[in-house]
Amino acid sequence: MEALLNQSRSLCPFLQRTSPATLRSLSTATTRPNASSPRGGTISNLQVIARRCPIMSKALAVQSARMATTPKAAFGGTIAGGASSVKAMGAVPGKKRFHTTATKEASVAREGRREHANVHPTLSKVDAAKPAMVNGSTAAYPGPKPEVPASKKFDYEGFYNNELEKKHKDKSYRYFNNINRLAREFPRAHMSAPEERVTVWCANDYLGMGRNPQVLRTMHETLDNYGAGAGGTRNISGHNQHAVGLENTIAKLHGKEGALVFSSCYVANDATLATLGSKLPDCVILSDSLNHASMIQGIRHSGAKKMVFKHNDLQDLEQKLAALPLSIPKIIAFESVYSMCGSIAPIEEICDLADKYGAITFLDEVHAVGMYGPHGAGVAEHLDYDTYASLDTPSPRSTKGTVMDRIDIITGTLGKAYGCVGGYIAGSASFVDAIRSLAPGFIFTTSLPPATMAGATSSINYQASYGRDRVLQQLHTRAVKAELNANDIPVIPNPSHIIPILVGDAELAKQASDMLLEDYGIYVQAINYPTVPRGEERLRVTPTPGHVKPYRDHLVQALQGVWERLGIRKTSDWKVAGGFLGVGVEDAAKNAPLWSSEQLGLREGESLEQALEREFEAEARDKQQMMLEMQQEDLRVHTRTTVDVAAAPVGIAA
Amino acid sequence: MEALLNQSRSLCPFLQRTSPATLRSLSTATTRPNASSPRGGTISNLQVIARRCPIMSKALAVQSARMATTPKAAFGGTIAGGASSVKAMGAVPGKKRFHTTATKEASVAREGRREHANVHPTLSKVDAAKPAMVNGSTAAYPGPKPEVPASKKFDYEGFYNNELEKKHKDKSYRYFNNINRLAREFPRAHMSAPEERVTVWCANDYLGMGRNPQVLRTMHETLDNYGAGAGGTRNISGHNQHAVGLENTIAKLHGKEGALVFSSCYVANDATLATLGSKLPDCVILSDSLNHASMIQGIRHSGAKKMVFKHNDLQDLEQKLAALPLSIPKIIAFESVYSMCGSIAPIEEICDLADKYGAITFLDEVHAVGMYGPHGAGVAEHLDYDTYASLDTPSPRSTKGTVMDRIDIITGTLGKAYGCVGGYIAGSASFVDAIRSLAPGFIFTTSLPPATMAGATSSINYQASYGRDRVLQQLHTRAVKAELNANDIPVIPNPSHIIPILVGDAELAKQASDMLLEDYGIYVQAINYPTVPRGEERLRVTPTPGHVKPYRDHLVQALQGVWERLGIRKTSDWKVAGGFLGVGVEDAAKNAPLWSSEQLGLREGESLEQALEREFEAEARDKQQMMLEMQQEDLRVHTRTTVDVAAAPVGIAA
Repeated sequence: MEALLNQSRSLCPFLQRTSPATLRSLSTATTRPNASSPRGGTISNLQVIARRCPIMSKALAVQSARMATTPKAAFGGTIAGGASSVKAMGAVPGKKRFHTTATKEASVAREGRREHANVHPTLSKVDAAKPAMVNGSTAAYPGPKPEVPASKKFDYEGFYNNELEKKHKDKSYRYFNNINRLAREFPRAHMSAPEERVTVWCANDYLGMGRNPQVLRTMHETLDNYGAGAGGTRNISGHNQHAVGLENTIAKLHGKEGALVFSSCYVANDATLATLGSKLPDCVILSDSLNHASMIQGIRHSGAKKMVFKHNDLQDLEQKLAALPLSIPKIIAFESVYSMCGSIAPIEEICDLADKYGAITFLDEVHAVGMYGPHGAGVAEHLDYDTYASLDTPSPRSTKGTVMDRIDIITGTLGKAYGCVGGYIAGSASFVDAIRSLAPGFIFTTSLPPATMAGATSSINYQASYGRDRVLQQLHTRAVKAELNANDIPVIPNPSHIIPILVGDAELAKQASDMLLEDYGIYVQAINYPTVPRGEERLRVTPTPGHVKPYRDHLVQALQGVWERLGIRKTSDWKVAGGFLGVGVEDAAKNAPLWSSEQLGLREGESLEQALEREFEAEARDKQQMMLEMQQEDLRVHTRTTVDVAAAPVGIAA
Repeated sequence: MEALLNQSRSLCPFLQRTSPATLRSLSTATTRPNASSPRGGTISNLQVIARRCPIMSKALAVQSARMATTPKAAFGGTIAGGASSVKAMGAVPGKKRFHTTATKEASVAREGRREHANVHPTLSKVDAAKPAMVNGSTAAYPGPKPEVPASKKFDYEGFYNNELEKKHKDKSYRYFNNINRLAREFPRAHMSAPEERVTVWCANDYLGMGRNPQVLRTMHETLDNYGAGAGGTRNISGHNQHAVGLENTIAKLHGKEGALVFSSCYVANDATLATLGSKLPDCVILSDSLNHASMIQGIRHSGAKKMVFKHNDLQDLEQKLAALPLSIPKIIAFESVYSMCGSIAPIEEICDLADKYGAITFLDEVHAVGMYGPHGAGVAEHLDYDTYASLDTPSPRSTKGTVMDRIDIITGTLGKAYGCVGGYIAGSASFVDAIRSLAPGFIFTTSLPPATMAGATSSINYQASYGRDRVLQQLHTRAVKAELNANDIPVIPNPSHIIPILVGDAELAKQASDMLLEDYGIYVQAINYPTVPRGEERLRVTPTPGHVKPYRDHLVQALQGVWERLGIRKTSDWKVAGGFLGVGVEDAAKNAPLWSSEQLGLREGESLEQALEREFEAEARDKQQMMLEMQQEDLRVHTRTTVDVAAAPVGIAA
């Protein structure tokens, strides 16, 4: 047994870290009734740990399945319970074979399987059952059994309740707030009672495009002309001029040859990474440690090798890239703006590394599209601000070698700054066509509705030709950050439009959020695990062009009140504690806003509030002008629609 | 080597089936340049096969990655190339250890790893590299390497083009048709040119709800009041009265405690099965062989054990259930209406089996919701037609023990018969809350827009209280099937509203579809691989209430023409060949329509066309009445909207 343990150690990280004495103690101490065992009884602590191991949990599952049909077998699992290597035994040629007490069921055991003895019987049982289960064959369970085995059925409701109980206990259970954002009173919303108003301070409709009159008008018209839904997948009657128009618009925005629209950017990231990672031979995906859940899922689903590099850490990324052969395909997957901390990736430097080591870049601009760059194409465009600003509309020509041009794959959303819903990828024509042809998450799903696609197209075009919304948004962000910093409220510093306010405790974060809502009429959702790591809980504030001075003053005042009443740590407290997540740490240069004062049009000697007032008035004039121009047309559209509806034929024969 | 082969055989299905002579031949014959090898060269046929093996492909990938940094290593892979068990070697305690030529890199190799010799060196290299790759650590590649390895970078564009070339070659490359379904001319659409009209015969907007005036009115109002998008995930400002209302409506429709809405039913199926399968301890998922891609993906993503049972085969399902321990959790995942062949599952009998063997049922009613049952809740409701017909609105009370009540999890879509977009699950309160709390595909994505959710709610309620659309749809289906059968056009027989017309060849199916579109102005997409297996290519026709006699006559005539001109096999041809997929086989009883003549209100002695005419007129009267009632209200709504838009404040200060 000692020899086995030594050998197992070389392979299992758990065994490496655990002393034989501890293992012995774990394997004898029993803890709780074994609900999943057909015979009830108890299980050892080692078995409890084994269930958390990706290798052993499956082996135990198979063993457990096996047990119920194997009356003679006894539940063992001492050392085996901790060795994260047992499952694999069933698949090794030339390894030692074990004696088993379950010879009757060994229908998959063939020659060579009973040659050796003297290893724990548990192992060989797992071994024998494995191939049958993997292939979904019933070889291990010969013939149909008309009688039901005399054990207890699984308690599904108990399981669900237990999972929920765990969430309640660790304070990660989520209570949704009923927030009805009012298009005509942006950024206000009503709660479940229509008269109860609150100010929304955490939506991702960063620019208020969800209530933009041009977007809404386009959607109304498209609804009337083409109906509520697309009526099919893209291949079967769900492909139309709105999809073509939207994808052309997106491709142009990012200066790419092609684009492809998905139900959401979650699906776009998941489907694209899963498809690339599984199809590219020997692919390795290098993933930033703060990447969004959708990318993490896509990488997992791809089955490709994953290497996580430290957040925005070029040295760590290069070390990992350099360790891989130049010849194998590699994808560097990262974001431009990280939504929960507001940090921004060193995109150009990552492109350099990608070039050097033969990787492609996969850049998620979900929180940046509409928000950065002279046309709203994102951070990659913003990095060549002047080049792109000199172009009326983005074009692949004359932008060769820019950062955006160098990125291979850009993904984005239509549901945040663009105010609608849906996600997309953009890249080379062949890449886009390959994903279009191969990704099940694209192929087998109903297209977005025509009105959604038309509205999103309108939104992108609006932002590509009109920049004042995002300038105003940035000015409001600067103003809120400055006010909070002046009041010792702990903002996690960053160069973007996101204002993460550190709380550092799940319960406190929820209390703060509830108090803001109930006592101040301010809606800022608490961000808890799993969206951020435990201990890094925060409030995430997102100003918009609509968050004018009275709203901002009210927010700062409310946060001060909440921080006092709940005794939440302030910046100065974090500073005393040595700083955390950048709070209480002096490093202003690193977090200089990406939108420079010059790009925002700030004038010499002008205060931020003066610039804001000026910019707000200019925007109001622009909007007024647009409204006046639309008004006549709107009247015509609505009148025509009404008449059309009234006169519409009921059917072909009507 | 022979002993190793014998042992490997007991574990690897490939080796079991392949003779040593064949293996020898495969391992020496070289086929093609090895593009992914850093040194170029050729690879053996055995290696080509190994790449298709789920176990070996990964081992080879790691090995290949390893190779480029290991100048001394030589690409071997004779027997090893075919043994689907090599990858697992790295994780086995007590197994024999191999001598390796790559000792320099063996930084993860610990004590006991070099004790034994005499097995092919390839194996141990895979072995050594594996743990490092899995954990994303660079332990196997010590230190940063400033120089780029002197091999060729991967050709990504070449890879994409190669994948596309394969699609072109096997005729599975998809050409999307630009189809713009006209709400006011349903079921007509225009092509890319606005004046070019076609009749759509393959959309999944089965009831024309996409242009239903009540749905559209609801959407217009919601757009004006609440804007274009939800503005966030459900947890962060994207939860609202429209989500609450829609989920309550869905739960009520299916007589369940709760429901949860997703971006699509693809996401709903994927996320729910992946979450359940990965969380339920030792879960086994039993999956119908014709299940939709979304379920297949969800099961794959769950990592749970999967057992595929033969399509609608209760005996096979029971055999598999009986072979599993009663105590472990099992999910039977299946559909009510299988969309590509129109078959219908034996739902009640599957519930019986689930009860007997302690499984839960996961029923995808995507192609059935809105279409079956007195309230449109799907096939499960339809099976207790009279019980549900006696209730004004579906209710969990008084329906205890019905088939729908017995189903644990129902999934459905808002994008087909309900004419909008989105998907959902319905089930017990705890189940729904658990998925809400655990599924990344739900948690980390922007909510559906308020207008979409409001429109879908309106659509469900409309169909729950008005049944004539689906009756008319069924009558049109009967009429088309009868006409096609009378004309020897090969309809795959089934009891549902789907009309699959067998072609049996990818190229011919595309030609038929193109000819229908170009020469007859009829749009029916060809259904090729991977949506259906190769050799089972078909045209899939879906009648709607709008496909009145002139359209139907035109379709039958066009199909006759296309079948003649392309020489496609007719029913009588398939009959001579012994029948295929039910075509040319006499088994009328099995395919009796689920909607009985009585349920459709067919009268004694009345012909189908007479009933159709009567029903059509009744529906036209109903719609006319509804339109008249709405007209006054619409006029008010639109007038108000127009005035509101004109008077809307531009900002808080305007």
